Amino acid sequence: MAKSVFYHAGCPVCVSAEQEILTLIDKSQVEVVHLGEVKNRIAEAETAGVKSVPALVTPSGNVLHINFGASIEEVKA
Amino acid sequence: MAKSVFYHAGCPVCVSAEQEILTLIDKSQVEVVHLGEVKNRIAEAETAGVKSVPALVTPSGNVLHINFGASIEEVKA
Repeated sequence: MAKSVFYHAGCPVCVSAEQEILTLIDKSQVEVVHLGEVKNRIAEAETAGVKSVPALVTPSGNVLHINFGASIEEVKA
Repeated sequence: MAKSVFYHAGCPVCVSAEQEILTLIDKSQVEVVHLGEVKNRIAEAETAGVKSVPALVTPSGNVLHINFGASIEEVKA
């Protein structure tokens, strides 16, 4: 099975959501990407449809925006 | 382990999110509550901190608002 990708940017809302997601979903099935640290993956996240972080892109390609930490525009800045 | 509770209201965004969540998380660990059908549980959802649906309340009591289908006020109407 393809992995889900959890995009975040280190914000408090992101960290809280990450902890919850990694409790609920098998850690081996989730790749965690900190867009503040790997800015060269922001374009990939935008292409996947990520509008804000934290967000989980599922193996089927759907984007689940979870709560709201920051917009993707803010992450770029 | 306590179950997570997934609150929704039958909206397209809710149904899509439900399908994803039930793919990612073991179904036996999630209770699905349709607030449009069981309106007497709206107060419980609000007490848990649910502001909009779909939302997942985790075993630790955190609320993950997933995308946005409808506000809890709209669900009450």
